[in-house]
Amino acid sequence: MEIKRIGIVMNGVTGRMGTNQHLARSITAIIKQGGIKVSNDLTIMPDPILTGRRDYALKALAEKYGQEARGEAYKYTTDLQGALDGKYGDHEIFFDASGTLQRAGFIEMAVKAGKAIYCEKPTAVETCEAVRLAKLVEGAGLKNGVVQDKLWLPGFRKIKMLKELGFFGKILSVKGDFGYWVFSGMDYDQPAQRPSWNYRAEDGGGMMIDMFCHWRYVIDHVFGPVRSLVAYGATDLDQRRAEDGTPFQCTADDSAYAMFVLEDGTMVQFNSSWCTRVRRDDLLTVHVDGVNGSAVAGLREVKTQSAANTPKPTWNPDIPQPIDFLGGWDDVPNNIDYDNAFKIQWELFIRHVALDEPWSYSLMEGAKGVQLAELGMESWKERKWVDVPELA
Amino acid sequence: MEIKRIGIVMNGVTGRMGTNQHLARSITAIIKQGGIKVSNDLTIMPDPILTGRRDYALKALAEKYGQEARGEAYKYTTDLQGALDGKYGDHEIFFDASGTLQRAGFIEMAVKAGKAIYCEKPTAVETCEAVRLAKLVEGAGLKNGVVQDKLWLPGFRKIKMLKELGFFGKILSVKGDFGYWVFSGMDYDQPAQRPSWNYRAEDGGGMMIDMFCHWRYVIDHVFGPVRSLVAYGATDLDQRRAEDGTPFQCTADDSAYAMFVLEDGTMVQFNSSWCTRVRRDDLLTVHVDGVNGSAVAGLREVKTQSAANTPKPTWNPDIPQPIDFLGGWDDVPNNIDYDNAFKIQWELFIRHVALDEPWSYSLMEGAKGVQLAELGMESWKERKWVDVPELA
Amino acid sequence: MEIKRIGIVMNGVTGRMGTNQHLARSITAIIKQGGIKVSNDLTIMPDPILTGRRDYALKALAEKYGQEARGEAYKYTTDLQGALDGKYGDHEIFFDASGTLQRAGFIEMAVKAGKAIYCEKPTAVETCEAVRLAKLVEGAGLKNGVVQDKLWLPGFRKIKMLKELGFFGKILSVKGDFGYWVFSGMDYDQPAQRPSWNYRAEDGGGMMIDMFCHWRYVIDHVFGPVRSLVAYGATDLDQRRAEDGTPFQCTADDSAYAMFVLEDGTMVQFNSSWCTRVRRDDLLTVHVDGVNGSAVAGLREVKTQSAANTPKPTWNPDIPQPIDFLGGWDDVPNNIDYDNAFKIQWELFIRHVALDEPWSYSLMEGAKGVQLAELGMESWKERKWVDVPELA
Amino acid sequence: MEIKRIGIVMNGVTGRMGTNQHLARSITAIIKQGGIKVSNDLTIMPDPILTGRRDYALKALAEKYGQEARGEAYKYTTDLQGALDGKYGDHEIFFDASGTLQRAGFIEMAVKAGKAIYCEKPTAVETCEAVRLAKLVEGAGLKNGVVQDKLWLPGFRKIKMLKELGFFGKILSVKGDFGYWVFSGMDYDQPAQRPSWNYRAEDGGGMMIDMFCHWRYVIDHVFGPVRSLVAYGATDLDQRRAEDGTPFQCTADDSAYAMFVLEDGTMVQFNSSWCTRVRRDDLLTVHVDGVNGSAVAGLREVKTQSAANTPKPTWNPDIPQPIDFLGGWDDVPNNIDYDNAFKIQWELFIRHVALDEPWSYSLMEGAKGVQLAELGMESWKERKWVDVPELA
Repeated sequence: MEIKRIGIVMNGVTGRMGTNQHLARSITAIIKQGGIKVSNDLTIMPDPILTGRRDYALKALAEKYGQEARGEAYKYTTDLQGALDGKYGDHEIFFDASGTLQRAGFIEMAVKAGKAIYCEKPTAVETCEAVRLAKLVEGAGLKNGVVQDKLWLPGFRKIKMLKELGFFGKILSVKGDFGYWVFSGMDYDQPAQRPSWNYRAEDGGGMMIDMFCHWRYVIDHVFGPVRSLVAYGATDLDQRRAEDGTPFQCTADDSAYAMFVLEDGTMVQFNSSWCTRVRRDDLLTVHVDGVNGSAVAGLREVKTQSAANTPKPTWNPDIPQPIDFLGGWDDVPNNIDYDNAFKIQWELFIRHVALDEPWSYSLMEGAKGVQLAELGMESWKERKWVDVPELA
Repeated sequence: MEIKRIGIVMNGVTGRMGTNQHLARSITAIIKQGGIKVSNDLTIMPDPILTGRRDYALKALAEKYGQEARGEAYKYTTDLQGALDGKYGDHEIFFDASGTLQRAGFIEMAVKAGKAIYCEKPTAVETCEAVRLAKLVEGAGLKNGVVQDKLWLPGFRKIKMLKELGFFGKILSVKGDFGYWVFSGMDYDQPAQRPSWNYRAEDGGGMMIDMFCHWRYVIDHVFGPVRSLVAYGATDLDQRRAEDGTPFQCTADDSAYAMFVLEDGTMVQFNSSWCTRVRRDDLLTVHVDGVNGSAVAGLREVKTQSAANTPKPTWNPDIPQPIDFLGGWDDVPNNIDYDNAFKIQWELFIRHVALDEPWSYSLMEGAKGVQLAELGMESWKERKWVDVPELA
Repeated sequence: MEIKRIGIVMNGVTGRMGTNQHLARSITAIIKQGGIKVSNDLTIMPDPILTGRRDYALKALAEKYGQEARGEAYKYTTDLQGALDGKYGDHEIFFDASGTLQRAGFIEMAVKAGKAIYCEKPTAVETCEAVRLAKLVEGAGLKNGVVQDKLWLPGFRKIKMLKELGFFGKILSVKGDFGYWVFSGMDYDQPAQRPSWNYRAEDGGGMMIDMFCHWRYVIDHVFGPVRSLVAYGATDLDQRRAEDGTPFQCTADDSAYAMFVLEDGTMVQFNSSWCTRVRRDDLLTVHVDGVNGSAVAGLREVKTQSAANTPKPTWNPDIPQPIDFLGGWDDVPNNIDYDNAFKIQWELFIRHVALDEPWSYSLMEGAKGVQLAELGMESWKERKWVDVPELA
Repeated sequence: MEIKRIGIVMNGVTGRMGTNQHLARSITAIIKQGGIKVSNDLTIMPDPILTGRRDYALKALAEKYGQEARGEAYKYTTDLQGALDGKYGDHEIFFDASGTLQRAGFIEMAVKAGKAIYCEKPTAVETCEAVRLAKLVEGAGLKNGVVQDKLWLPGFRKIKMLKELGFFGKILSVKGDFGYWVFSGMDYDQPAQRPSWNYRAEDGGGMMIDMFCHWRYVIDHVFGPVRSLVAYGATDLDQRRAEDGTPFQCTADDSAYAMFVLEDGTMVQFNSSWCTRVRRDDLLTVHVDGVNGSAVAGLREVKTQSAANTPKPTWNPDIPQPIDFLGGWDDVPNNIDYDNAFKIQWELFIRHVALDEPWSYSLMEGAKGVQLAELGMESWKERKWVDVPELA
């Protein structure tokens, strides 16, 4: 049995998402499980090198996760150029989880080094820049991809299964609710918890640029292509405390409301907010109403109600509501093993690079997400619906 | 003790709403409770006469509810003009619950007869007509009012109480969800249940014209004046079965989505749909997020979560959601007796007529509801935000 | 408004079923509700005369239920011939709820008197006799019907709705379980509770003759025409105590097992037993498995599980069963008012007689039930499958 | 203390059942627990060698389970003849878990090698072949056995205990329900899950041949000898998806219905289906009704209701069922430790071979299972009851 090593430069995984999702639950988990078993004759085994600016942070991660994965620390260096140049071993893949505003520079370095390129979203804060990067990479003939993890959330996979089983019949509308209350750290509130740059436009923060990238591929892949949208953003809390405890001015939208109309006329609504207290099944819920049945997905669990099980309510505010509207729904059971969403996409990308298997989540696809965010901001500013043009 | 009789011509209460809410649960309930006790010396006792087209239907209602209220049938007649002319006794108030398209004609008759005028909403399907009626009535110096029952739903009264108590601090956003699945009666669905004209635009049906009238006074009175809106309507089901079992084409919007921005910048969202299966606390829920706390109101019950009780979730789709997001909310108890909303407003109007007490729910206020519905349809058609001008 | 009286000779309603279902919950309930309202212009009002052998028993019933229904005792007489001859007023309908073995004689009397004929099942214990009666009545040109109450059980009505909604897709199999433990009254058991003749073949008792009449119309109307069957009966308890406390020999089958194959190949199994302790949802449950979903009906409640909600179990007897197989099912809500099944059929028959409305439950249809019971006994004796021929 | 080694050739345990039940939970578990302790002086320790066709699969199992059991890989080889010839050490027992159609050839090899023979059921798909094999082995004077694991299911052991305790009194009837919904993998359904050969008659698949082998020994040992039966099979789903994702035609019965009558007249019914959604306590339930009490067994748990606890229901579909028929049953507690059923039988067979202890589960007993399956198919085809003759 052959074990094929594949080297990966992991840049900027010292952040929360980079560490937890990409380093720990994806690459480390893949190594720990014995690699990606392709057949009885072939297994692919990732071998990462961590790059970034802070030597001590890289060292800590490389030791912790390398030990956990294979009893031996990962390589690491602050010399990214060297890593790309092969100074520390062969690495076919370059992965970037640095800040959005730094992304382009790193990708350009990797293109010059001829790496297969995989990166976090958004790839840029402007569509033209995201398209430029996509074309640059394509023009260089390099394999490439953008993280679109939410496609592999168990909740969305079950919704897709329901759709394919014909459970919904014709889908009439989709209502998504995302977000929760992120403490501001101000005197009236509990201590702050998320990175402060998320709330500063000048640092690439903002709900639309963050989440519309996700909603784009979720809508496109699960429900169908988006035709037009109207969006509205708000900065609900104008002051928060930063990591160092000092208050700062919030300049980015911390809540965003959007209505999307799909090619086939379906209405898809998404509310996204860091300033809402959650009274629903999960941090993200998507309610799908179809002619034959409805479903509400959380991150993992999905509840269904079919036409036959739909109750007939009466409007009578003079008595307590006699119907338990949360009770008449049935679970979609966890009949398959739902692996970590980031890890699933990592395995697909590694197979794409190593085995030339097909792949749908390119930088150009990622640019579509940036486009939707940009159009959202245009709609907000212009106070009107905007159409979604093809990306040239 | 003086018992002051007040005569009321009740026109068109043979419909579902007219019978249940106005005749049974309002006027009959008031008579049954011994009238409106103003003081130890004075009680006002309504005395209705039912008018309409179908003699036998009026008779049945007059007997049933008259017997129930006071052991003696109410008066009734198909001769509305005669009733207005005093042919069947004195009646100070004219109330209309007929169809929207018939309303104007009846109000004009009542104006000529010099009655105090009270009627169901919408007062017209066009703003100019609603304003014309309001001015006509005002010009004639007549007391007047429009039903705005939802203001007295226990849920909204509690929200108002929370606001006045300072529970929310600054209100950031409001999200309303209204509606349920109304069976179409088609082969794939359960038997139809609501009047078919609701789904035909040519008969005055449609979600926007029906519900935006309500959302206008609810928003204005509970949260503050509306400044602008963007709305979108859809006809999700294009065929339904009528009362006689034959399928008909649906021409009116059966779902309507709107974002309202208030004078003070608050975002208020309202989804209204007859094509959604309910997975929330009640048929109408309103979620209010404030800096210091949040609340979710149903028709009667309200749940709250304050800053101190707000949980801190983590995004981890790899494990079942550890937080019960429905559990961390607290009830607002029913510390007062919440009477029927229609009845409360009836008592206020009767006192306004009989005792000259103040009154805020005039035909001009009702015209504002029609205005909001009309602007909603304009926004939908023009695909843009529209501002809400003052009604001249 | 016209009130049209319809006279009904009710014969032999002193038995348990006759009194409870036909007299109390059907005819008395219809009179109490103000008759059968056909239109705004016409109401049909039944007027019964009770006939039978025991004068005092008839008197007691006539007084109790007449008072309850209309404040005045019903008529009654032991002179059935006189009642048929019009001696005690006009009566268009003759209804018989006497014993099976007495039925033919009474029906012949009513045929001679030219009455519309309605009766309990079975109409006879042998098919040829049941067919003879059906032809006699048809030949005389008389309207006629047999009780087939189980068609209007809420459970079966919901199953039919599910089928019409397409919930099941293709139906694969149906499994019915009927019965409960009827105490024998013997020393080892609790006191006896059902009529002792049920357990004596010589008195017309027996599970097959009793229940296969029901299963015939239920299967034919809800699932499709029966093609063939194999049946097996057993007398599980051979001694029981009679009404007077003396033990007697049981000669009839008290449990019956049958497999039916329908014209379209569907397998329908029915177990019927008075010697089983119930561990299922209800006294009668019918489990329907279809390609797209399954349902289990009790008398009133129905539970569903669709393809998407179906769990994936693992056979592992080494650990407690991790799946709650009773939990993953959803209720079919009670969205319409389910009236008493006997009363619904009575109203249909009275309308058939009074207004010539269509009617499907004739004596010839009833004979099909007797046929199925007879074929069941033939299959049992011959130890083979038997086909179900057309009734000539 | 003597530790007596016993060598076992385990052939074809790479399949699901072979690996999980025989290798992992039986032999590996026995070694892990320190062997079979016969007395303070003697322990028997199994030592397996794995045989089969796929070298790498054998290697993986031999390493994994050998390490787990004793810190050292098991032996394995693709050279079965060599293993039987003692080329890889002494092995007294030959065990076969290969496919039914390969079984005879392997057994003949083992007979020539003079091994004690133990194997999975069915031993053949035809009775004459199963009997031939049994006689061949007996004629050679070899100890032999067939897997009859369900006898040691905790549920059946408890039923047997209840019977021996006299809890049931005379047993009147037994109703078994086995099976669950096996996903077809077709477009309307969830992904396929069981081996596709189960659904192809030409590959030895089919519900009757699979399950009647079990029902034979369960009935014979727990309730008494079978006298006659009528059976019916159906192929409910005619298309499924195979392991490689392509649809195939189902040619075997995927549901089987049977009534058995025992020597003492007891009726035993067994439904077995891969096309039913489970609404009962467990994947297999057996409901036993006796004069003095009833019990319902699942795989592990058993519920009982005795004569004194039996409720007295009333048939009244007009009101919700007032009796909770699932509630009035009592648990049989787990007072002893119920070991894995396969392991228990393995220990018995090993003691039989090593110590000459008595043994009841011979190849001839196994042939009776094949006989019942064959008679079931004859009954189905001939559409009649068939008797069960003695096996010569």
